[in-house]
Amino acid sequence: MYTGEKKTGKVRITIIDYDEAQFQEKEAKSVEECFPFNDKSTVTWINIDGLHQVDIVEKIGRHFNLHPLVLEDIVNTGQRPKMEDFVDHIFVVLKMLYYDEKQKEAGAEQVSFVLGSNYVISFQETEGDVFDPIRERIRMARGRIRKMGADYLAYALIDAIVDNYFIILEHIGEKIEDIEDTLVMNPEPETLQAIHNLKREMIFLRKSVWPLREVISRLERWESPLIDKSTDIYLRDVYDHTIQVIDAIETFRDMLSGMLDIYLSSVSNRMNEVMKVLTIIATIFIPLTLIAGIYGMNFRYMPELEHPWGYPVVFLTMSIIGILMVIYFRRKKWL
Amino acid sequence: MYTGEKKTGKVRITIIDYDEAQFQEKEAKSVEECFPFNDKSTVTWINIDGLHQVDIVEKIGRHFNLHPLVLEDIVNTGQRPKMEDFVDHIFVVLKMLYYDEKQKEAGAEQVSFVLGSNYVISFQETEGDVFDPIRERIRMARGRIRKMGADYLAYALIDAIVDNYFIILEHIGEKIEDIEDTLVMNPEPETLQAIHNLKREMIFLRKSVWPLREVISRLERWESPLIDKSTDIYLRDVYDHTIQVIDAIETFRDMLSGMLDIYLSSVSNRMNEVMKVLTIIATIFIPLTLIAGIYGMNFRYMPELEHPWGYPVVFLTMSIIGILMVIYFRRKKWL
Amino acid sequence: MYTGEKKTGKVRITIIDYDEAQFQEKEAKSVEECFPFNDKSTVTWINIDGLHQVDIVEKIGRHFNLHPLVLEDIVNTGQRPKMEDFVDHIFVVLKMLYYDEKQKEAGAEQVSFVLGSNYVISFQETEGDVFDPIRERIRMARGRIRKMGADYLAYALIDAIVDNYFIILEHIGEKIEDIEDTLVMNPEPETLQAIHNLKREMIFLRKSVWPLREVISRLERWESPLIDKSTDIYLRDVYDHTIQVIDAIETFRDMLSGMLDIYLSSVSNRMNEVMKVLTIIATIFIPLTLIAGIYGMNFRYMPELEHPWGYPVVFLTMSIIGILMVIYFRRKKWL
Amino acid sequence: MYTGEKKTGKVRITIIDYDEAQFQEKEAKSVEECFPFNDKSTVTWINIDGLHQVDIVEKIGRHFNLHPLVLEDIVNTGQRPKMEDFVDHIFVVLKMLYYDEKQKEAGAEQVSFVLGSNYVISFQETEGDVFDPIRERIRMARGRIRKMGADYLAYALIDAIVDNYFIILEHIGEKIEDIEDTLVMNPEPETLQAIHNLKREMIFLRKSVWPLREVISRLERWESPLIDKSTDIYLRDVYDHTIQVIDAIETFRDMLSGMLDIYLSSVSNRMNEVMKVLTIIATIFIPLTLIAGIYGMNFRYMPELEHPWGYPVVFLTMSIIGILMVIYFRRKKWL
Amino acid sequence: MYTGEKKTGKVRITIIDYDEAQFQEKEAKSVEECFPFNDKSTVTWINIDGLHQVDIVEKIGRHFNLHPLVLEDIVNTGQRPKMEDFVDHIFVVLKMLYYDEKQKEAGAEQVSFVLGSNYVISFQETEGDVFDPIRERIRMARGRIRKMGADYLAYALIDAIVDNYFIILEHIGEKIEDIEDTLVMNPEPETLQAIHNLKREMIFLRKSVWPLREVISRLERWESPLIDKSTDIYLRDVYDHTIQVIDAIETFRDMLSGMLDIYLSSVSNRMNEVMKVLTIIATIFIPLTLIAGIYGMNFRYMPELEHPWGYPVVFLTMSIIGILMVIYFRRKKWL
Repeated sequence: MYTGEKKTGKVRITIIDYDEAQFQEKEAKSVEECFPFNDKSTVTWINIDGLHQVDIVEKIGRHFNLHPLVLEDIVNTGQRPKMEDFVDHIFVVLKMLYYDEKQKEAGAEQVSFVLGSNYVISFQETEGDVFDPIRERIRMARGRIRKMGADYLAYALIDAIVDNYFIILEHIGEKIEDIEDTLVMNPEPETLQAIHNLKREMIFLRKSVWPLREVISRLERWESPLIDKSTDIYLRDVYDHTIQVIDAIETFRDMLSGMLDIYLSSVSNRMNEVMKVLTIIATIFIPLTLIAGIYGMNFRYMPELEHPWGYPVVFLTMSIIGILMVIYFRRKKWL
Repeated sequence: MYTGEKKTGKVRITIIDYDEAQFQEKEAKSVEECFPFNDKSTVTWINIDGLHQVDIVEKIGRHFNLHPLVLEDIVNTGQRPKMEDFVDHIFVVLKMLYYDEKQKEAGAEQVSFVLGSNYVISFQETEGDVFDPIRERIRMARGRIRKMGADYLAYALIDAIVDNYFIILEHIGEKIEDIEDTLVMNPEPETLQAIHNLKREMIFLRKSVWPLREVISRLERWESPLIDKSTDIYLRDVYDHTIQVIDAIETFRDMLSGMLDIYLSSVSNRMNEVMKVLTIIATIFIPLTLIAGIYGMNFRYMPELEHPWGYPVVFLTMSIIGILMVIYFRRKKWL
Repeated sequence: MYTGEKKTGKVRITIIDYDEAQFQEKEAKSVEECFPFNDKSTVTWINIDGLHQVDIVEKIGRHFNLHPLVLEDIVNTGQRPKMEDFVDHIFVVLKMLYYDEKQKEAGAEQVSFVLGSNYVISFQETEGDVFDPIRERIRMARGRIRKMGADYLAYALIDAIVDNYFIILEHIGEKIEDIEDTLVMNPEPETLQAIHNLKREMIFLRKSVWPLREVISRLERWESPLIDKSTDIYLRDVYDHTIQVIDAIETFRDMLSGMLDIYLSSVSNRMNEVMKVLTIIATIFIPLTLIAGIYGMNFRYMPELEHPWGYPVVFLTMSIIGILMVIYFRRKKWL
Repeated sequence: MYTGEKKTGKVRITIIDYDEAQFQEKEAKSVEECFPFNDKSTVTWINIDGLHQVDIVEKIGRHFNLHPLVLEDIVNTGQRPKMEDFVDHIFVVLKMLYYDEKQKEAGAEQVSFVLGSNYVISFQETEGDVFDPIRERIRMARGRIRKMGADYLAYALIDAIVDNYFIILEHIGEKIEDIEDTLVMNPEPETLQAIHNLKREMIFLRKSVWPLREVISRLERWESPLIDKSTDIYLRDVYDHTIQVIDAIETFRDMLSGMLDIYLSSVSNRMNEVMKVLTIIATIFIPLTLIAGIYGMNFRYMPELEHPWGYPVVFLTMSIIGILMVIYFRRKKWL
Repeated sequence: MYTGEKKTGKVRITIIDYDEAQFQEKEAKSVEECFPFNDKSTVTWINIDGLHQVDIVEKIGRHFNLHPLVLEDIVNTGQRPKMEDFVDHIFVVLKMLYYDEKQKEAGAEQVSFVLGSNYVISFQETEGDVFDPIRERIRMARGRIRKMGADYLAYALIDAIVDNYFIILEHIGEKIEDIEDTLVMNPEPETLQAIHNLKREMIFLRKSVWPLREVISRLERWESPLIDKSTDIYLRDVYDHTIQVIDAIETFRDMLSGMLDIYLSSVSNRMNEVMKVLTIIATIFIPLTLIAGIYGMNFRYMPELEHPWGYPVVFLTMSIIGILMVIYFRRKKWL
């Protein structure tokens, strides 16, 4: 049922349990270690890195009483970002973007959350460092996080993912600027290919980010006892960030369209320039060649040929015609 | 009244009747065999393959008390996907997509369902194997299906159809990748034709899938005693899949548009290249031809012609002009 | 006030009066003949072919107590399809499409209905045969029509008009297929003109059909005592047909856009081909002409000219250069 | 504060006061003459032509107790059409279009209305004759106008303005037809300029008319004691006209886009034709020129030159090559 | 946390405190000087120019009890315009546009407001003179401002910012007109670059202005005790101005698209003209060159060469061919 890339590494399960007064962090060896935390009044964050061992997800599902469709969506990594309320828990699927340094392209990984009354379970395809600052904030009791409930933790995780989008956008922004410089100096078919690739990347990003807008908006407006009123303002903040990401994507798309236009018309311009050179050469030399051809004819009776001034006069005429042509083209601004 | 392709084969009627405890499957010889099942408390699924014998549909309509417009819509295969509530039964029309191996194109077939309180009647144009896994699940009592009512069966049938869309999308995705490879290596007018054909296919798919979104969304939100609350979550799941299909179609459309741009500008680029070759040849050789023409003139008094160094000097001059031209074009990056 | 084409023929008034038990049909000589039917409990359908005699419309308006704006809209044939409720009657304006065989183009004619509690008055610009099947159904008491009220009659008339759209769409579909064949075999400027004409036709159709969607949707949802609940399902059916018509128009528009792209790029391709021929000829022959020119120079001291092998060697060289060029172009796939 | 064109002429104030029984019309010498009419139960229409004397507008504002922002909007002629309710009066800003015969372009002028319980004050930038038919109808007591209140008068004024749009649209329609004829016969760069100018005019019209739709729609749905229920049907009628105007503008836009496509591809077609001529000439004559060049070489040993049949054979060969070329191009449909 | 440009200058804090009777203005040396004003019943306007000293913002935040997210948004200058209600204060973020004279481009600066019951705190990145007229109006007690509350002050500040947009639009309008003149007279690749730059500027402006529409619309409709009903009409007025700005931006975008089309087709036209010149030259001279070439052949037996009229006849023939060609091209309108 797991539809992502095949992997063989061990699934890593980490548990962070805290309230304002106490804090506990440990790496679970088996999935069963997570279960006792369910009953405690503290906030518990269970993070699972790796979805290829479906049985782990199933065990958690059974213990936390998750709907079978939730389990399906967790391991089926082709989901669209969405939010689903199952009364005693809320299920959220998001896309975490990362920048693939090798392929020089943005990639996406599915992250899902289950938010219960006093726990958050997060599922990632691979280990990532996006959540590290949150761990640090919990450990150090920095900011509000230790004073707030599981809903705030869920917000913090979503916020971390959305903030990460801006890094991807910066990468793409840099690429666009690079292309723009090339476009002005020296447009090549490779430039076209690069614009096309970026366009595809924008299609990909758009697909990942657009539904997010609705997900967060629904979370914010949702009337669920699991989400405290005081968390709404934070969710609204993430929502604003999502809109900013979408704005940036749309702006990039507009810019790429503009660049394509520039590219096409600069190709057109260069063709024009080539045509002008050809036309100038042909227009100047072909008539002169005719003159030379005429006096190369072998008629017996051609009085000009016998005349001592014949050659210089014809040569001069040719030169004058050539110069007049050049002046004409100057006037027409072709030279 | 039947508007699909003319067919002559026999109409196949299969009946599956089940509840949690019992299960019965048979192929009906005449349409009347279906009628007794209507009164039983078990869930009955009547599947009719073939719509060309309109009288069968009419008999079923009379027995199950279906609205005349429903019968019309069942046999008139040009329907748009839709959902209609007739209080004691809900009528759903969908498009089943299949991949026509011969024509290498996606095709569509109309499938309609009538969902009653304890029965589902499904009408297909031809026999298909899309519903076989559901039959298997009922036979083997796998999953929830035997424990749930007729509404869950209807969901399962719709789900099977929507899942089948992903296979069509994969076929198209492969075709797009093929074209993309050709596009980079060797764009031909046939490539353009292929892009155009895919675009038409996308228009066709879009027309089949877009209304589906609304159909399923209405089914999910519909307040009918025929659809149990617990089925809503499953319908929401199919809805998510439909959105994914629509997303994929839109993405393909965007990609095809991009490919058309690439194609057109690569044609443009090649024309540019051709023009450059022509211009280089003309610019180098036409002036040299003029020089040769000049010394081919037959004037009696042309001192250069008499000079012993005349020919080598002119030959050298021609060579130098040629070389300078080549250098000039190198500078202009035309060579 | 009448804004359609000027006409001089007589206005034809036909009256059909029926209920389940009785039926009466006659052609009225004067408009006053219609008035008695207003008071009877039977359903009365008054059909007026021809709007150029405004006084007839005015008399009917006065007798049936129609709002002055309704009368204005009936004779002013540039109306947009719309529906207006005047409590004791509902006024509907539609566009009837017909295929003009002479001009090979779709045309539109305004049809308006006034639906009262027990009558329908229909106004057409010219006599048409679209309503003939309905007359036949009333005469023969086929189907439901004789058992239902005036609202069903109004539905039947609207349905006849919408069904007629499909015939127009078929004509256009055939034209599109014709063009598509030409496009592949032999694109001409006339093809472009034909595509353009079809695009204009689609704009025209769209303008006629789009507002219809809203009209029928409002009729269906309208809470009026004039429209019985049981008629809603029929109106919903016409609504579905309208959506199908709109879908088809949008699909045709998409296809025409695609065909324009194909046309433009096939023109581009052919230009490319022409350019290649020119470049090949120029590239092969211009250098050879230079060689011929060089040995046509009249220098006294040109050792090659005196040599007995001079001519064959130069001839051979020329041939080799020519052959190499051909091989080069083969490699470049220009030949 | 007045932002329109500077003007120096006198501001013209006309007062029409009427009810069903009586009628009074006069041209006021000073603004104070208008004030007594405010207290009468008759309907009073004060029309002010010219906004450059801001003090007149201010005096009226003070007497009729208008909001300061209303006065600002009246004299600031760059307003967007809008409707504002100030409980005891409703303020409406519209754009009156006129066809500037000199510049051959549509122009716009701001018209604002203040509708009170028994008065309408209208402000125009310049004197116009659009309202003359309404004056005539009041004078002659034609139609309903003398029997209805101030709200009907306001409707009549708006209706006059919207009806005037159709005249502008006709002008533009004629221009489009003119261009279309030129497009087919003889496309010139001027045609492109004309299409572009019309496109700009459509942008301008669109900007003036689009907001009008909302203004009238709000007026119609507005729950104000100043607008009687019976006027709603008339407002709905103007609304329909506005939609028709918008439809026409959108259709014109579509047509202009189509014409641009036609223009561009006809330019492309002509280039193609030019290229063909060039290619045919070059392909036929350049090889022949080479042959002539070869037999123009001065080699001592060229056996063909000595042969008595040499010249005729070569001449014949050349002719045959030429004829074959022509046949080849005929086959390729280039000739 | 401050994300704008790095700056080192001092942060300038100015306080204006007023009611109808009294007025006080001072520049605060430290942020603590602002605090006493909070408790007074007068309206207090605290303006902070410079956000790089985050501690000042923090102190104000603590004293005025602002939400931590508000403080974050104030110093994080990449915000999207938005409005947030925190019950005891309303937070508004806007973009102030300015015209960068050096780079000849529009720039944006973030301005945020906190509106409390009797105070407004405004935060700007740099000192600007946009608010000076408001300061002057408060000092001089001109207009309504001294009689109204803090909400009116907030409106006045927003109004000043939106009014400033019109100045930017005028700058851009002038640039567009400049380009349009060049486009007609003399289109250059630089023109294309200029159009492209303006397009990017429009994308930038759009991004700043579009969300503003929603912000002001929400402010107007918002049910908050902090905003008096009487201020709504003023907010509606700013809203209308925002719509006008958006309209202008969209119109400019449409015009720029049109200009790009004109540019591209004028490049195309010029290429066409160049091609024609080339074709005319080639078509006239190449056949003549062939004739000259033929009579330049060295065959011993060429009777024409011996004939005394040979040369004149050939010369005449050439001239006639040339003249016929010119006539032919005149007919084809190529000359």
